[in-house]
Formats: sequence, structure tokens, C-alpha cells
Amino acid sequence: MTRIRCRQLAPQVGESAANHEEILRSIRESRGVDLLVLPELASSGYVFRDAAEARSLALTQTSDTVAEWVEAVPGDTVVACGYAELGEDDIVYNSAMLFNRNGILANYRKVHLWDQEKNAFTPGDSPAPVVDTPVGRLALMVCYDLEFPEYTRSAALRGADALVVPTNWPLVERPAGERPPEVLIAQAAARVNKVAVVLCDRTGTERGQQWTAGTSIIGSDGWVVAEAGPDGTAEASLDLTAGRDKNIGPLNHLFDDRRTDLY
Amino acid sequence: MTRIRCRQLAPQVGESAANHEEILRSIRESRGVDLLVLPELASSGYVFRDAAEARSLALTQTSDTVAEWVEAVPGDTVVACGYAELGEDDIVYNSAMLFNRNGILANYRKVHLWDQEKNAFTPGDSPAPVVDTPVGRLALMVCYDLEFPEYTRSAALRGADALVVPTNWPLVERPAGERPPEVLIAQAAARVNKVAVVLCDRTGTERGQQWTAGTSIIGSDGWVVAEAGPDGTAEASLDLTAGRDKNIGPLNHLFDDRRTDLY
Repeated sequence: MTRIRCRQLAPQVGESAANHEEILRSIRESRGVDLLVLPELASSGYVFRDAAEARSLALTQTSDTVAEWVEAVPGDTVVACGYAELGEDDIVYNSAMLFNRNGILANYRKVHLWDQEKNAFTPGDSPAPVVDTPVGRLALMVCYDLEFPEYTRSAALRGADALVVPTNWPLVERPAGERPPEVLIAQAAARVNKVAVVLCDRTGTERGQQWTAGTSIIGSDGWVVAEAGPDGTAEASLDLTAGRDKNIGPLNHLFDDRRTDLY
Repeated sequence: MTRIRCRQLAPQVGESAANHEEILRSIRESRGVDLLVLPELASSGYVFRDAAEARSLALTQTSDTVAEWVEAVPGDTVVACGYAELGEDDIVYNSAMLFNRNGILANYRKVHLWDQEKNAFTPGDSPAPVVDTPVGRLALMVCYDLEFPEYTRSAALRGADALVVPTNWPLVERPAGERPPEVLIAQAAARVNKVAVVLCDRTGTERGQQWTAGTSIIGSDGWVVAEAGPDGTAEASLDLTAGRDKNIGPLNHLFDDRRTDLY
């Protein structure tokens, strides 16, 4: 079983030291957790005034800040964290990183950008990485990426046991008693692909923007097994190998049943 | 607004006359309804002993039975109904038909077959039709088809306002208080494509098989607006044009945001 924890932080643009401290604290407290997931843009905050502000808050993969995160990892925890990245090409990306105490396992630049992100970031040009880690085969993607079923399918076809998804969901209207629509979409992606989905949203209000705080851990059968409590933490133990057999019933197989001649 | 009605029938293999009578009654009572949807295999029942039994219950598109359905349509109702089809090629298909009083508007042969259907039917080799009708541009697919997000996307890309889906969902376990998983998948398909989804399931028990009775009408925002009541009928009025504008927010477009270079 893989022990999974999401910490639904509340980063603020302009509060870099505090954002950094919260990330470090979350990492330091993760002893015994196999997979810790933090939100999108956890280091920078989200609501930038303009592209220059986003750039001013971007980190390189080789920055001291990132090195501190890696050094803070206790034991064998694998960590996913979203951040504003300044690439070696001097371009600014909305990125997420998967790392453990040995260093960076994968870096991903979000390819589907939401709203004003299009003004602040350049989209990546590589698909979501799917990497073998000590806790299973993990796909890393960010927020709006999840809403493209072609993209989640692609990660599943490349063998992902779980989709690890740092997010920042602006609050949208929904009927009373319903989960956030993004969670429904994630549940469907889990079910049709038999993959777990680990969604770490953010909370709080930032420059007037309210957030959904919709953090959810979803099993490979599509059901939500944990949501963030009042302390902003969601925890669950999942067998990440449970979805590897794509047979569903004696005559059906989620991937082999696809009619790729028709789409 | 389009007035939609689903009638969640309980057909039984071996009770063809009664099944036919229920279909006819549903059609005759549909005056004032713009779109009437009936279940998958409504004429034959579902739980066949073998392929020979399925063949014995199959109808041609030119059969007297189908002619009676067409003749029974009152006013301007468009009807979707699932049936076992004997093709002009002497092959047996799990089909659905869209018709009004003027005749057949579209015929569809299910391409993704579930479980023992693989022994009773040959899969179709054409994608879900998307056809202009007096009530809007409708895509027609059947049950398990819906669980392939490539397939629902394809219908949306071809301009469907609504996915019309006769189904027979064998009852599967789900956590208390949750909708059937197939409905979650349909909600996600609706939301990521901005299309309405009209699901007409069946009810009852047939040769020991329990059914989900999960009939649901879903708006192009992904929310369920109607489920079948105790009388097996679900009704809703939807603006089927509401999903035609695929912009979501000032900088995002559901289709244009796809990264088709990556999948």
C-alpha cells in the first residue's frame, strides 16, 4: 500500500518566504508518507499582476530553493510540487517537479494553460512524464491538463499507476451537494483508465480570487477515498498496482476494447 | 428549449409482444415531447441464452415492427430506440435507431460491445452518427460506447449538441450516495465537450440480471438535471444550443486548447 498525503497550501504572490517555509514544513513533516503532493505554483502563488511578476518569482531547477526542498525530504518520500520555472532557455513555465532526497525525478511544463496563465507562461512542448519511482509508476500533470481526456488516456497508456496532479482551481459555481466539476472529470479519468488520481488543490483567497479547495484522492475504480479536512490535509493508503490489470470482466479490456480504427 | 423524455422500460427476452407493446405505448404517449429516448435492445431484451436466440429476435430496418414504430409517432417527436438488428448482410448487430414520423433518420451499430454481447453480436464499423434533426444535432451511441472518451469527443468535434445514449447497465457496486459510475463518466463527457447527454437505461431483473436503472439527463455543463422517477420516466427541458460556443472564459476554448501535437 502507498501512503499518500496532499497538503492544500495557500500560497500568496509576494509572500515568497512564507510560501517557501510552508513547502519546507510540509516536506519535513512527511516522514512515513510515500507520496506527498503539494499544489500548483506553490512557491510563487498564482494571481500575478503581469508576466514580469511571474518571471520575477520563477525558480530554476538548479536554484538554492529547489535544493533546499530536496535536502528537506525525510526518508523515502516522493514529493510533487508545482512552481513557476525559469528554464535554461530563459522562458517561464508553469511547472511541476517530482523529487525525492536523491534529487529531481521528473520535471514537467504544463501544456494546457488556463486563462491569464497564457499571458504569464509559455506552454511546455512535452507530454506529461510517466516515470518509475520507488512508490510506483507516476504521471505528473497540472490542473487544466486533467480536463483533456486524450491526455489522461495517454498517460495511462504509457503505464501510469497514478496521475499526480498539483492544481489551483478557481472556485466555480456548482449545484449544492455536488463535488467540484474538476473532481468529477478526474473520477471519470480514473474509472475509464483504471488509474489512481491524486489531486492537490490550494485554498485561501488571493488578490480577490477564491479557490475551490477541492483536494481529492481517487482510487483506480473512480471513487474518492479522501478529501482535505479542515487542516487542509488529505490522506489515504492506496494499492497503486490495483489498476495494472486493464481487464474488466471476462471479455473486456479497457485499452484493447478501444476502436482506434474509428478515432 | 427541447423537451426530452426518457422511458426506462423493462424488456424481457422471450416477451417480444409485450416489449413491442411497451415501445409503441411510449411512442404514442410522446405527443409534445421533442426527443423521446428508449433503452438499448428495447425490442428484444438483453440476456440472450446464445447467439441463435439473439438472431431469432433481430429485426430488419424494413420490418413491419419498425414500420409500426414510425407510424406511431405523434406530431414532431424524434425517437431513439435500441434494438437487435438483422442487417441486410445477414449479420446481427446491437443497434439503435433515430426516427420520426417521416422515417428513419439514423441507424447505428454499436462498436464497443460489452461482455456476452461479443458472442451475440458483431460490432459495427462506423462511428456514432451525428445528424441534424428538427430538435438539434444529435449523436447516437449505445451504452459502453460512452466509456471511451475518444468516442464522445469525436461526436462533439463533429458538432453534436447532445449525445443520445440508449443503455442497459448491469448493476455494479458503488459507494452509498454515489451515482452509477457510468453517469459520472457521462457527466465528465458532457463537461469537457460542452454537450448534453441523454442516458436512457432499463430497469427490472431479467434472467437473474439486475439492472442499474440509472437513467439521467445531463446538461452541457455536466450537471444532472433529471433522473427517472418511480414511474421510470425522466423529463427535462434543455437548450440544446447552449453548448455550441466552446469558449470557456475569455482565453480558453475546449477544442482549440487541445494539444493535438501531443496526443
